[in-house]
Amino acid sequence: MNSFGRIFRVTIFGESHGESVGVNIDGIPAGLPLTAEDFLEDIERRKGGTQKGTTPRQESDLPIFKSGIFNNKTTGAPLTIIFENNNTRSGDYAKQRAVPRPGHADFVASKKFGGFEDYRGGGHFSGRLTVCLVAVGVIAKKILASTQSIKVAATILEIGGEPDLEKGLQKAIDAKDSIGGIVECRVNNLPLGLGEPFFDSAESLLAHAVFAIPAVKGVEFGAGFAAAKMFGAEHNDAITDASGKTKTNNAGGIVGGITNGNELVLRIAVKPTSSTPKEQQTLNWETNQIEKFSVKGRHDLCIALRVPVVLEAVTAMVLTDLMLLEQRIPRILP
Amino acid sequence: MNSFGRIFRVTIFGESHGESVGVNIDGIPAGLPLTAEDFLEDIERRKGGTQKGTTPRQESDLPIFKSGIFNNKTTGAPLTIIFENNNTRSGDYAKQRAVPRPGHADFVASKKFGGFEDYRGGGHFSGRLTVCLVAVGVIAKKILASTQSIKVAATILEIGGEPDLEKGLQKAIDAKDSIGGIVECRVNNLPLGLGEPFFDSAESLLAHAVFAIPAVKGVEFGAGFAAAKMFGAEHNDAITDASGKTKTNNAGGIVGGITNGNELVLRIAVKPTSSTPKEQQTLNWETNQIEKFSVKGRHDLCIALRVPVVLEAVTAMVLTDLMLLEQRIPRILP
Amino acid sequence: MNSFGRIFRVTIFGESHGESVGVNIDGIPAGLPLTAEDFLEDIERRKGGTQKGTTPRQESDLPIFKSGIFNNKTTGAPLTIIFENNNTRSGDYAKQRAVPRPGHADFVASKKFGGFEDYRGGGHFSGRLTVCLVAVGVIAKKILASTQSIKVAATILEIGGEPDLEKGLQKAIDAKDSIGGIVECRVNNLPLGLGEPFFDSAESLLAHAVFAIPAVKGVEFGAGFAAAKMFGAEHNDAITDASGKTKTNNAGGIVGGITNGNELVLRIAVKPTSSTPKEQQTLNWETNQIEKFSVKGRHDLCIALRVPVVLEAVTAMVLTDLMLLEQRIPRILP
Amino acid sequence: MNSFGRIFRVTIFGESHGESVGVNIDGIPAGLPLTAEDFLEDIERRKGGTQKGTTPRQESDLPIFKSGIFNNKTTGAPLTIIFENNNTRSGDYAKQRAVPRPGHADFVASKKFGGFEDYRGGGHFSGRLTVCLVAVGVIAKKILASTQSIKVAATILEIGGEPDLEKGLQKAIDAKDSIGGIVECRVNNLPLGLGEPFFDSAESLLAHAVFAIPAVKGVEFGAGFAAAKMFGAEHNDAITDASGKTKTNNAGGIVGGITNGNELVLRIAVKPTSSTPKEQQTLNWETNQIEKFSVKGRHDLCIALRVPVVLEAVTAMVLTDLMLLEQRIPRILP
Repeated sequence: MNSFGRIFRVTIFGESHGESVGVNIDGIPAGLPLTAEDFLEDIERRKGGTQKGTTPRQESDLPIFKSGIFNNKTTGAPLTIIFENNNTRSGDYAKQRAVPRPGHADFVASKKFGGFEDYRGGGHFSGRLTVCLVAVGVIAKKILASTQSIKVAATILEIGGEPDLEKGLQKAIDAKDSIGGIVECRVNNLPLGLGEPFFDSAESLLAHAVFAIPAVKGVEFGAGFAAAKMFGAEHNDAITDASGKTKTNNAGGIVGGITNGNELVLRIAVKPTSSTPKEQQTLNWETNQIEKFSVKGRHDLCIALRVPVVLEAVTAMVLTDLMLLEQRIPRILP
Repeated sequence: MNSFGRIFRVTIFGESHGESVGVNIDGIPAGLPLTAEDFLEDIERRKGGTQKGTTPRQESDLPIFKSGIFNNKTTGAPLTIIFENNNTRSGDYAKQRAVPRPGHADFVASKKFGGFEDYRGGGHFSGRLTVCLVAVGVIAKKILASTQSIKVAATILEIGGEPDLEKGLQKAIDAKDSIGGIVECRVNNLPLGLGEPFFDSAESLLAHAVFAIPAVKGVEFGAGFAAAKMFGAEHNDAITDASGKTKTNNAGGIVGGITNGNELVLRIAVKPTSSTPKEQQTLNWETNQIEKFSVKGRHDLCIALRVPVVLEAVTAMVLTDLMLLEQRIPRILP
Repeated sequence: MNSFGRIFRVTIFGESHGESVGVNIDGIPAGLPLTAEDFLEDIERRKGGTQKGTTPRQESDLPIFKSGIFNNKTTGAPLTIIFENNNTRSGDYAKQRAVPRPGHADFVASKKFGGFEDYRGGGHFSGRLTVCLVAVGVIAKKILASTQSIKVAATILEIGGEPDLEKGLQKAIDAKDSIGGIVECRVNNLPLGLGEPFFDSAESLLAHAVFAIPAVKGVEFGAGFAAAKMFGAEHNDAITDASGKTKTNNAGGIVGGITNGNELVLRIAVKPTSSTPKEQQTLNWETNQIEKFSVKGRHDLCIALRVPVVLEAVTAMVLTDLMLLEQRIPRILP
Repeated sequence: MNSFGRIFRVTIFGESHGESVGVNIDGIPAGLPLTAEDFLEDIERRKGGTQKGTTPRQESDLPIFKSGIFNNKTTGAPLTIIFENNNTRSGDYAKQRAVPRPGHADFVASKKFGGFEDYRGGGHFSGRLTVCLVAVGVIAKKILASTQSIKVAATILEIGGEPDLEKGLQKAIDAKDSIGGIVECRVNNLPLGLGEPFFDSAESLLAHAVFAIPAVKGVEFGAGFAAAKMFGAEHNDAITDASGKTKTNNAGGIVGGITNGNELVLRIAVKPTSSTPKEQQTLNWETNQIEKFSVKGRHDLCIALRVPVVLEAVTAMVLTDLMLLEQRIPRILP
């Protein structure tokens, strides 16, 4: 339930205010150089930069290798990374528990797990676990880059409907509310032939993975939803050479579920952060009364700001698994 | 690669112009009444009705049970259904082979499978295989309806950007081109608690499955891409009673990856049929020349017309699997 | 539940007296030449030869390809083979139903599937389904032989404790009873490196598969149970050259869960055929009385006689999957 | 590759002389009381008692919960346990590396992982990881006992062919060599209906799991290998009442791949410890010369002494997964 992948197999675990969050990755090729240094840049990127709109919570977020590394290289055995949780303030959560926050998993988590869930700070549902995804991404991107020069890069396309990030964030600040955004990922140098028709189409696997990122509510490939308004002759990408390069790229690099050797392009819709400074209503399940409710404390105004590096991570994760399945990455690195 | 599901496990097979297409389903609860009659309505719906814009190819499409049925009930053993292929004209395909059709899988299939693929009529990549998905849907919807009164229903929202189907199709006819559309699926009476945070979120599994439908290029849940333009207080759905019912349903029935007991709402973007009467260009891989190209013969102007019943099918397939995992459907039906 | 394998993925289905039995195999490399002829020898071997002790039931057992073959080669798409059931006499079974045969699955099948199981001739539990395994074996052995000259061969070691087959069978005939036996499988030219420590050890996967053969009640590798009586210096196989060849082969070709490049050797214990001409007792679940019971009709005295080709099949199935996982067989055959 | 189970999903990781070994378990029902105390008895049992023949290495072996526990109960989220490695002496290993120990995984590990494996003390192949299996067993046995009063118990049947443990060990001491043994596991109160015919037979899954225990070279159920010498009327277990109880239990509680409600009985053959004080020969892969070789340091004379608690663990692990699949254990404990 908390795992993904067929050969490059990822399992995440942990809770926001528990002892740690972490990840286990099986099927990593042996011989990949890997140190804690490799993770720092992406972990920093996940913090959403110094932009307005990100939480001041300081997470040290140093990866601690628990297995699978020897002499600074992967061994081929399962690799486990732990991120310790420090600097958490969990005292507040017990009394807030009867007042499930709108847009959060509080209510469903409690029902699904019979009240046994760790409810502090979202527990196992917390965005905190995306640091584990980021760690997976560091490894996957390094494998893709080193073996095939594949490059995975995501950027924010718009915030609150504005292509200008500053302007989008300012809307939120002015409204004293949180705000959504759109993030795009592009992959270059990807070979033709990844994915299968139907159930394991490249789109299926990528979509599966991107919805593992909290707050994602939509995904599209290439022209995506715009394709629904297009004519066929307009949408079809004409093949122009023997390698399969196409004149346009409305397909976003995937035809018939299979990568076609063109740039992979996907976009995701990120909803506004559920925690908003704005006053809202919810049900107090002890009193059974509707209550007014307002989120205090450190929270992002725009969670989309943190998403690009996470989107790169899950995209690279899926592609690494497909590359291994297609024998385009060896089990032992040269 | 051609399978989906953890307990309710579906495997599809077959080629457009081979002997047959078919499906194997493992994990069906024992004791479900099932006859060929149960399939006729949905198989008819898949043909896209008598509307303009659907292909005149007559497919008899009677399900032939090969295993798993005894005394007109499921046995609990794997059920296999075959649909024989008749009325196929495959003579044309060999000579067209060097001219991969834009927007089709012809080119990638040939490269991926080293030229060994059955290229006639799209082979294993053909939309013909969606009849297998429809058959799965008949069974899954019957299980969901009989045990929990869960109702799955999909409709076309727009064709070529027009909410009026007739108008949208007329645009295509006027343009002598194919056209795309948007299809929506709604599920009622679904219990709270299906899905997991992260990798097996309800959205992840549903998105995985809908991209198994050929021509789908985007999916969104609830407010979907519109959420990216919204403020938090606007998007959050206020919980209004102890069952978890919410005032609005921007989440589309899923929060934190878990169904929340509200209506499940998802929409998919369907690209225009790749086969269009319009003249196009492509590479002839024998001559290595760009050629003009025009699709003759029977083809749909708007593949979206056929999609609703297929979307219901894959949606019901995912939900049946989740219901079994959550022990909300018994292994033996009462 | 009826599937095995990670890349080379096998799913079996069907019932003894239903319309057919069959198998779906996903992940077959593209380009393997394959015709019905390839299956005849092994299907004949499965009948147990012309020896005493095998059933006179004539099964035509011609494989009917339903998908995955084009121009007599595998396409890389899932391959489905059906074996039609003819020459079955199912009239007898309904009245015998309340009298579950000792040693058969009749009783457990009925309880497990709530009485909905196809109980005729053992239904989905029937040895009839081993013809599907044999078909898998034909394909797997052909892949192993063509790419790596790997040879899989099983023989009967003893019947009823006698290394002489004739003598063992005569014991059964004299006793008017069925009898068990031991079958051994050896694999040559297998590379070093298949399998993993712990859960996916080569022994784990092979043992998993051999217990899919009905009537198997034990498996051992190399010295096997004899190792439990040995000293370490006696059991350890000394490595004698740089390829890893060993002086002795008490390990049976697997150390630490990994194949070591020496001959793979495994043996299985096959219980006596449950159906015996001898009078036995069982419970009549309608009358709730203990009844005397005697099996009439066609049945094997010694099911072990039919097992070698099935043991080869499941062994080759496991090894093909491991070879693909280790990238020692390409996805497209040369 | 290092995972097992469909719902109750176990992943192990770590190396003998790395930072730690550990286990991740997904799919644990929520609400199981669990503290470090629960693990102490079985962890102690794994040390093989105070008998002659076990290693003096002191392992503190306290389980450290990293996730999945809240208020001393399981949360339903993945549970991670780490065992830190202390008291290891790894300095010796580098120089011994070119001299692969007979019977160990040294040679195959090096070849399989291209020399990148952590070779210290067997690395990821070390028996040290069985402490993780023991931890899984503690949890699985607690679930089985609390919900269904199922009891799993393993004992040593014989050492070096002797049913008297002392005598068997004395043989080894006298011979200055290590020695093998046989361990039996019995499960009581197991319901009828677990397992499937063919690939997921109860025997298949149990055998898969027991071969995850290092040094196991054979497994048998009920009469096992003795069945190969028996007549049918002798081997068949007569059903004596409506619950399916049988007069004898040659089947070991499994018929047709399905548990039949009788006692589950399985036995495994454990080879002698590969590390023996006796002088042996092996290849030095640097000099390419055959060398004399003798194991110094702390090692068990009879690894079978430590196996019973590990055998209980993997048996309970398989049964818990099957019980969840059959909906006989709820996802939330009462």
